[in-house]
Amino acid sequence: MQSDTICAISSAHGKGAIAVIRISGHNSIDVLNKIYSPYGKKETSKKLRRRVSVGQITDGTKFIDEVVVNEFYEPHSYTGENVVEISCHGSTYIQNYLIELLIKNECRIANKGEFTYRAFMNKKLDLSQAEAVSELISSKTSKSHELALKQMRGGISSEIKILRDKLIKFASLIELELDFSQEDVEFADRKELMTLLDSIKFKILAIIKSFKYGNAIKNGVPISIVGQPNSGKSTLLNKILNEERSIVSDIEGTTRDTIEEMINYNGIEMRFIDTAGIRNTDDKIEKIGISRTYEKISSSLFILYLIDRSNYNSSLTKKEIQSIKSKISDEVKIIVLLNKFDLNKSDFKDNFLENFDCFDISAKKNIGVEKILKNIEQNVINWNDINSDIVITNQRHYSSLTNTISTINEIEKGLESKVSGEFLSIDIKKSLEYLGEISGEISNEDLLDSIFRDFCIGK
Amino acid sequence: MQSDTICAISSAHGKGAIAVIRISGHNSIDVLNKIYSPYGKKETSKKLRRRVSVGQITDGTKFIDEVVVNEFYEPHSYTGENVVEISCHGSTYIQNYLIELLIKNECRIANKGEFTYRAFMNKKLDLSQAEAVSELISSKTSKSHELALKQMRGGISSEIKILRDKLIKFASLIELELDFSQEDVEFADRKELMTLLDSIKFKILAIIKSFKYGNAIKNGVPISIVGQPNSGKSTLLNKILNEERSIVSDIEGTTRDTIEEMINYNGIEMRFIDTAGIRNTDDKIEKIGISRTYEKISSSLFILYLIDRSNYNSSLTKKEIQSIKSKISDEVKIIVLLNKFDLNKSDFKDNFLENFDCFDISAKKNIGVEKILKNIEQNVINWNDINSDIVITNQRHYSSLTNTISTINEIEKGLESKVSGEFLSIDIKKSLEYLGEISGEISNEDLLDSIFRDFCIGK
Repeated sequence: MQSDTICAISSAHGKGAIAVIRISGHNSIDVLNKIYSPYGKKETSKKLRRRVSVGQITDGTKFIDEVVVNEFYEPHSYTGENVVEISCHGSTYIQNYLIELLIKNECRIANKGEFTYRAFMNKKLDLSQAEAVSELISSKTSKSHELALKQMRGGISSEIKILRDKLIKFASLIELELDFSQEDVEFADRKELMTLLDSIKFKILAIIKSFKYGNAIKNGVPISIVGQPNSGKSTLLNKILNEERSIVSDIEGTTRDTIEEMINYNGIEMRFIDTAGIRNTDDKIEKIGISRTYEKISSSLFILYLIDRSNYNSSLTKKEIQSIKSKISDEVKIIVLLNKFDLNKSDFKDNFLENFDCFDISAKKNIGVEKILKNIEQNVINWNDINSDIVITNQRHYSSLTNTISTINEIEKGLESKVSGEFLSIDIKKSLEYLGEISGEISNEDLLDSIFRDFCIGK
Repeated sequence: MQSDTICAISSAHGKGAIAVIRISGHNSIDVLNKIYSPYGKKETSKKLRRRVSVGQITDGTKFIDEVVVNEFYEPHSYTGENVVEISCHGSTYIQNYLIELLIKNECRIANKGEFTYRAFMNKKLDLSQAEAVSELISSKTSKSHELALKQMRGGISSEIKILRDKLIKFASLIELELDFSQEDVEFADRKELMTLLDSIKFKILAIIKSFKYGNAIKNGVPISIVGQPNSGKSTLLNKILNEERSIVSDIEGTTRDTIEEMINYNGIEMRFIDTAGIRNTDDKIEKIGISRTYEKISSSLFILYLIDRSNYNSSLTKKEIQSIKSKISDEVKIIVLLNKFDLNKSDFKDNFLENFDCFDISAKKNIGVEKILKNIEQNVINWNDINSDIVITNQRHYSSLTNTISTINEIEKGLESKVSGEFLSIDIKKSLEYLGEISGEISNEDLLDSIFRDFCIGK
C-alpha cells in the first residue's frame, strides 16, 4: 500500500531568514523534479542515500525562489519514504506559495505529526520514540531535554522489550500446553514463571516510581507559596525571580490571571504559584475563595509555608498547617520558612515544626533563599529511583505499566491457586498487550490519533 | 584578512519541528567537526562543492541532538566562505544550546544581515542584490515578491552598469586630455558626450519614475476613505474586507489605534485608512482633530470620497473636495463614489464631478465595489513606466538616481558653456559615484551599516 505525498512547513511559524518545507512519500522526488531545477550537473550515483543541491523553484515558467534542496532516498530517511527538504527564503509569501505549488502537484498538507507517524508505520521509530520526538521539541530545560533524548534513543523500549520477550517465551510454552491439553503436561515451569513475574514486577515498579520524577521534569515542578498576610510571600517570590536565573517564559497555556512564575533552576523548571488569600476564616464567602486556592495548591508538589519569625503565633501556625495538610495529598511536601530572620535571630523552638523541613530565611536580605531552591531540587532528584535506569515522563506509559502490574498480580494469584493454563494464558496475553502498547507493538487507530494529535505540524 | 566565524539561528523565531542554525567563516568546518560526528563514512572527494550528512551533535561526551548537516565549501556558498547549516530539532532549548555550544567553540553571534554582508564583501552579490534579499524575505504579495526577485537577480545593477561603463569611458578620455592639457587636445567628443548624457538621463528618469509604482508595491498602497457622516464609509470598508480576499495581517508596526485594514488584491497590498471625522467645521477644537486626519490622508495615494447619492448637496461636496485638494499633493488621486445607488437610481449630473473618476456604487448591496478596487489596481499598474524594464522599490536607489540626474544636468550645463575638461571631470566623477552607490561599487561603512541594520538575524 503506497502512501500519498505529504508536505508541510517544518520550521517555526512566521518570517525568518530561512524556512524549511518538508515533503514525504514515494513520489516526493518526482514532485520535486516538476518544480525544481538544480544548478550544475546532477549526481546520479545510485548508491547515494541523500543529496544536497542548490537551484531554482519555478511554477511553470515563473521563477519563485532560489533554494537549497536535500533529498533523502528511501529507506534512508526520517519517514522511511523518499523525503525532500527545501530550504527557501523565509518570507511567509514564499512559504505559502511553495505549499500551494506542492498541492497543485498532488501533495497534501500533512496532518500533525504525520511525518513521525509514517516513521513509526515504517518501523523507523517505535511509538515511545515517536512520542519522545514531540517531547524533545517541547523541552525547555536541560533535564527535560535529556530525558526526551534518552527515550528517543529507545531507552524504555529496549528495557520493556527484554521483559516482554521473557513473558512471550512463557506464553508460548503455555500455548503449547494447551495444544497438548489432553495429555496434561506442563512445559512451562510454574516456579520459574513465578520468579520471572517477581523480577518483572520489581523492574516495572521501579520504572513506575520514576514517573513522579519524570513528570516533574517534563511538566515542571509546581510550588505554592502560602502564608499569612505580611509574612513576606511577594518579597520571597521577587527574590527568587530577580536573581539571575533564566526565566522560562514561553510555557503554553500560562494565562496572566493565574499568578504563576517560572524559573529554570539547574535544568529543573520550577513554577511558583502565588496564593495570596489563604488563611483561616469563618466568613462564608471568603471560604469559597479559599477553597479555590486550595484546589490550586493541591496540584502543587511543594508548598512553601511562610511564617513571620518576628511575629510568631504557635497555635495559629499549627491550625493553618494542619488545615492545609488535611486538604492535600501525602505526595505534596510542605517546607516551612521562618522569614524575617534578619529582624529576629533569637532561638526558635516549636515541637510541631520538627515534623517539617524548616529554614530560617530573610527574603528581604536574600538569606537562605538559595537553600530553599536547593532543597526542592534535591527532593526532585531523589524521586528518581536508583533501581531504574529508565525514567518515564509520559502518562500513557505510566498507565500501561500500572495496568501491567495489575495483570501480573492476577497471574500470580492464578498461579497460587493453581488455575489452568487457559486462564493463565489470558492474563499473560493481557500483560503482553499492556507492555506492547508502550513501544506500539500493540496499537490501534484511536491510540495513534491521540498521540500524534499533540505533535506540531511539520514533524 | 580572514574573517571570524559567525553563527545564528536562521529559521523563524520560536518552536518548530525543525530549526536551522547557520555558521559562516573559513573555520566553520573545523568548528563543526569539534561538535559533530556524521553517521557512516564521510565522503572526502575534493571536488565536492557541498555535502549533506546525518549525525550527532555532542558537547564533550554529552549527546545533544541528532541533526542533518549541510556543508558548503568556499567559495561555493552563499557568503563565499565555508558555510555550515545544521537542521536540528526545533525546541528553543536545543536552538539556544547549539548557539551557546558554537560560541564556546569560538563562533560569534552574527549581526543582522551579516551573512549577506559577507556575501557582498566577497562579491557574491552586489549591494542592490543584497538589499533585495531583505526585501524578498519581507515580501507579502506576489508583486512585491516578483520585484524583489528581479532585483535579487541583478536587474537594476546590470542596467546601471551599462550606463556607468559608458560614462567611465568618457571620464577616462577626459582624464587623458588632462594629462595632455598643455597640448589642448580633445580626445572626448563633446557632441557624443552630450548624446550619451541625454540617453542616460532618459533611461534614469524612466527608472526614477518607476519608484512610485515600486514603492507602492513594496510598502502597500495607502487609501483613505473620506466622507460625511452616514455616507456609508464603514459599510464600504466592511464590504471590501469581508469579500473573500486574503487579508494581509502581519504588517509590522500596525497599531490598533490607527484604524487601518489591509487586503491583498491581485498581488497589490491595499491599505484602507478609516478617516471618520473629516468634515468642514468652524469649531476650533474640532479643526485640530481634522488637521490630524489630514496629515494621515495626505500620506495616502488614493482618497475614496463617498457621497450619499440619495442626499446630495452640490455646494457642500464642492467645498469639501476643494478643501481636501488644497491640503494634499497632486500625486494623490481622488475617486468619487456616489453611494446608495440602490436607493436612488435617478440620473445624476454635476459638472464639478466631471474632473474625477466617479462611480455609482451601493456599498450595502455590493454594487460597484469591485470596480473601485480594479480602478485602483489599474492606476497602480499604470505608474509602472513602460520605458523601463527596471522598477525600483528602494528609497536609497531613488536618491542616488535623482542625485545622478542633478549632476548630469551640471555636466550638460558645463558642456553648453564649454567649461574645461577639469570641471567636466569633477562632475562626471560625481555622477559615477552616485551610480556606483546603487550596486555598492562605491560604499562606505555608514551606508553599509544602515542597509544591513534592516535585515533579520540569520540572513
